[in-house]
Amino acid sequence: MKVTVIGLGLIGGSMAVDLRKAGIATDLVGLDLNATNVSKAIELGLVDRTETEDKALSTSDLIILAIPVNALCALLPSVLDAAKKGAVVIDAGSTKASICRAVNNHPKREQFVASHPIAGTENSATTAAFSGLFEGKTNIICEKDKSSDEALAVADKAFNALGLNTIFMEAEEHDKHVAYVSHLSHVSSFLLGQTVMDIEKDEKNIFNLAGSGFASTVRLAKSSPEMWAPIFEQNLEYLSQALLEYIMHLQRFHYHLMKKDTKELHRILSKANEIRSILDGIETRKQNSEKSIVK
Amino acid sequence: MKVTVIGLGLIGGSMAVDLRKAGIATDLVGLDLNATNVSKAIELGLVDRTETEDKALSTSDLIILAIPVNALCALLPSVLDAAKKGAVVIDAGSTKASICRAVNNHPKREQFVASHPIAGTENSATTAAFSGLFEGKTNIICEKDKSSDEALAVADKAFNALGLNTIFMEAEEHDKHVAYVSHLSHVSSFLLGQTVMDIEKDEKNIFNLAGSGFASTVRLAKSSPEMWAPIFEQNLEYLSQALLEYIMHLQRFHYHLMKKDTKELHRILSKANEIRSILDGIETRKQNSEKSIVK
Repeated sequence: MKVTVIGLGLIGGSMAVDLRKAGIATDLVGLDLNATNVSKAIELGLVDRTETEDKALSTSDLIILAIPVNALCALLPSVLDAAKKGAVVIDAGSTKASICRAVNNHPKREQFVASHPIAGTENSATTAAFSGLFEGKTNIICEKDKSSDEALAVADKAFNALGLNTIFMEAEEHDKHVAYVSHLSHVSSFLLGQTVMDIEKDEKNIFNLAGSGFASTVRLAKSSPEMWAPIFEQNLEYLSQALLEYIMHLQRFHYHLMKKDTKELHRILSKANEIRSILDGIETRKQNSEKSIVK
Repeated sequence: MKVTVIGLGLIGGSMAVDLRKAGIATDLVGLDLNATNVSKAIELGLVDRTETEDKALSTSDLIILAIPVNALCALLPSVLDAAKKGAVVIDAGSTKASICRAVNNHPKREQFVASHPIAGTENSATTAAFSGLFEGKTNIICEKDKSSDEALAVADKAFNALGLNTIFMEAEEHDKHVAYVSHLSHVSSFLLGQTVMDIEKDEKNIFNLAGSGFASTVRLAKSSPEMWAPIFEQNLEYLSQALLEYIMHLQRFHYHLMKKDTKELHRILSKANEIRSILDGIETRKQNSEKSIVK
């Protein structure tokens, strides 16, 4: 089938390469506002070629949007307008409520499948794309009932080929839980990086005194502002709740620290330690999915 | 030379194994309040045997303390009391000012070398110890002038054998910079783990929705409360400054988020992105040190 990928970054590029590998995409067109990304994607063999937007959208069987969520909301209605009858449009945005709202009353709403494959690294360029990125990861489809059975079947085939495990959620539920579990981590990491650079004027000290723990904790601060600023804004309400909760926990810790309340500090850290069993579960799943890539 | 290691966790155990490998420790005694750790360390071949504290301390040429910093402050004076003339005592504590103060007027102060090898993982048990932990890492010696040349020479030999690069700092300077670069990361991670477990009641959601970013950001929340609560307390003053700065950055971000100030959010995230060049430098050094372990 003819597949057009709009947005040739880490997500779009990695989807393209594995959809072709699985034999789903037999004709693979790439579009990107940035001409360098397009030529890079062709050079790396992620896509076959590029076309005019009109031609690509009106002749493709599957259109994938892997662009920042603000651009997604703006572009999605016109992409659906241009899509041929029976074509399926999938997005990969990290927020879902705004995106679903943008096409809620669109006459072709049922050709759209609102999706969020939870995968990525802190690197965002075309050159960062790789085969296997989605293997064993979770994919969330929202407002399933607003997509046609035919569209869901095509989406399902594509997501299966990428190795994703799909679950279903309402869009608001998605945004709430993703704010808690993913978006807050990004904010915490961005601002930790900012704080340390601000307070520690001498970069040499960061370089010398940082154990591997520092690198791990601020790794997400390397993420793309173009991608993350719009996510934070679109998920403002739930992210704000999560952020206030985090600040409250930090302030309470600070209070007990200043009181030298050893027992309470110990209790707080021991409680936080319970995250170990969850992380171990995530690690086991990751290892299993790596094994399945190898085999 | 006869070496006694007090505290057979990740740090003490890993030092023991590489000091023997390098031929520095020809007779290796392990002490630990926890009898299971002692038998585990002997079983794993980290140390040769155990002895009574009196015997071990009065006959060793090098005594290494790798125990929580509150126990360190309490124990260090009596360890120096018991050490034979010419023996060298080294600690591995993550704070330095309190520890230096605890033996400031000790008659054998010059036999002590106040040290902080910056290495570790989020795992703290005897079974977590491994050869190569210190290779290519930074070691900080404080109050160098209060140690004798002989003691510094022995310490230098041991740290070199572990592959550590030693730099020198005043104790207060050490505590300040380490609060900014390392201790704050730990607090941020512990409290992020706590917040997410608190706000996200359903563990299944954490498990399903967490990308690898979440695991990376909360990894340090797995660290030992027994080790970290005393570090935070001893470094209260500088950690408090760093923590307030972090909270201020989070609150400012929250303010701009609620104002939907896209431009300012973008500016903040782009500024935080500058951490990339520092992290890339750390990563390069890590790779170089791994290469040197291999060869």
